[in-house]
Amino acid sequence: MSEIPTLGIDFGGTSVKMAVAQGAELVSDLIRIPTQKHNGPTELIHEIKTKVTKLKKQFPNLAAVGIGVPGAIDFEKGITYNLTNVKGWTNVPLRDILKEELELPAVLENDANCMAYAEFKHGAGQGYQNVICVTLGTGVGGGLILNGELYRGSRFAAGEIGQMSVDLNGVDGPYGNHGALERYIGNRQIEEMAAQKYFDSSETTPVDLSPENLCQLANQGDKVALQVWDKVATYLAACLMNTVYLLNPDAIVIGGGVAHAGGILFDPLREKLKNCLTCECFDHLVLIPARFGNTAGIIGCSTLARGVVGS
Amino acid sequence: MSEIPTLGIDFGGTSVKMAVAQGAELVSDLIRIPTQKHNGPTELIHEIKTKVTKLKKQFPNLAAVGIGVPGAIDFEKGITYNLTNVKGWTNVPLRDILKEELELPAVLENDANCMAYAEFKHGAGQGYQNVICVTLGTGVGGGLILNGELYRGSRFAAGEIGQMSVDLNGVDGPYGNHGALERYIGNRQIEEMAAQKYFDSSETTPVDLSPENLCQLANQGDKVALQVWDKVATYLAACLMNTVYLLNPDAIVIGGGVAHAGGILFDPLREKLKNCLTCECFDHLVLIPARFGNTAGIIGCSTLARGVVGS
Repeated sequence: MSEIPTLGIDFGGTSVKMAVAQGAELVSDLIRIPTQKHNGPTELIHEIKTKVTKLKKQFPNLAAVGIGVPGAIDFEKGITYNLTNVKGWTNVPLRDILKEELELPAVLENDANCMAYAEFKHGAGQGYQNVICVTLGTGVGGGLILNGELYRGSRFAAGEIGQMSVDLNGVDGPYGNHGALERYIGNRQIEEMAAQKYFDSSETTPVDLSPENLCQLANQGDKVALQVWDKVATYLAACLMNTVYLLNPDAIVIGGGVAHAGGILFDPLREKLKNCLTCECFDHLVLIPARFGNTAGIIGCSTLARGVVGS
Repeated sequence: MSEIPTLGIDFGGTSVKMAVAQGAELVSDLIRIPTQKHNGPTELIHEIKTKVTKLKKQFPNLAAVGIGVPGAIDFEKGITYNLTNVKGWTNVPLRDILKEELELPAVLENDANCMAYAEFKHGAGQGYQNVICVTLGTGVGGGLILNGELYRGSRFAAGEIGQMSVDLNGVDGPYGNHGALERYIGNRQIEEMAAQKYFDSSETTPVDLSPENLCQLANQGDKVALQVWDKVATYLAACLMNTVYLLNPDAIVIGGGVAHAGGILFDPLREKLKNCLTCECFDHLVLIPARFGNTAGIIGCSTLARGVVGS
């Protein structure tokens, strides 16, 4: 617990979550501010400032703040280009606003990169040099650790695993990218796939087709649910195969709600990857469930903030 | 011409090519030794030694040697795992053998990485930080420059763009990787595609269906040849789209025989990439034909050799 305390602010479409962290530990309460209740950035930033002022009394040595946001950013300039599912946040110089308002050194990062960094520094990716992190949820996000560092790309847009295609003639993607992975294994798409598979089978369709429940059903031996997870593993393996041939990583970390499926997802995924990769690529590759759940974003950006302490 | 002279040895299935280079310039004659004529490594290495002994008299300040090989290697140990199309080269500690025989510091690298490094240091990729290099030929090779450095991956196997899939239900790949790019746009596959398209059309099938001739035909307005190149661009764009969503590079350099197709290939490729990428990814991306042809390997590995001078 000797690490310096920093603040992590995890912007989400529903709520802004924040907490003070030391290393992988949250040392303050988790504070939630509803995102949509506020009329755009000014009000929300004011609310954040109020909460942080209190936190600073509790943690007088609070050293920096890291902000993770769901969408495209300019890392160098600290500007949000636009945030997915959050209106009114186009071209906001959020890093410098918070730096001034909170009187703390600040860093702004994409949320999937924050999660990757959290897993690399404190979680499932520790000790590996080249790590592909995937988060499965409403969409499919990704972050890359290459040669022991967060890899951002030329315009800070790297790691968009959910937009990679598994089939050039596949379903429409949001940017003309036919066959985009997240159009096959986003949470809603998994539910739709399950609805279709139960409909096609002689089994009764369960009321709850959420990935969580499909996971429980599969663990109870439900054949249709097992088929659904096998199909999810097929799509995910096809995409991860491409990332492995391109980057030859030593670890793939999978997080997000669907990752809780555990062996139901990881066993067929490992088998499918084994069957489509060279030995050089597969034998040294580990597939690991993420360590952090909902707090990955906070831990990641508070950890990144440690890099700007004093700046 | 003030750069220190180093030797580049480019191993190929047909011949070993070597020359002394300073920067991007070959300053000696290009020497060719037939690969298959020799009974495995020992004889061939003896032949190389004989040639290099003469070169060292001509270039007494020859400072190091770089060796590029077609296949999987261990970069750190300097060992060839196995070479594509060259028998008898499994687990050969080629770097240290040549280091001893030639009495020069030596470095061993995969040939696609050598080409990428040549383009990055002296060619089309100069000045860019994140570059994806693709070579189109019998197969499809690749090399990555990330954050201004050659990226090798955890087992030195990164950049295998030809093994990436464009269709999870596509044609068989060599490692179970269905839909592997090189099974669509390798030279032979392009010829087969053309044969089929001419057969299906009312046009007479040309005798020569090589990519070079298909390129000439397309430039003369031959509709079937134009369709072939459009289809090649479709497959290549599908794969490059995935590399861009993952790595957000600032440049893609395309080399190899097919790259000479010029606008016939590059124009539809650029258009297709524009139609499937986000603005952040596409607007800052340049597509450039490689500068070097057959000498890319020699220039790349002789340039890499400069990094081990004195070691």
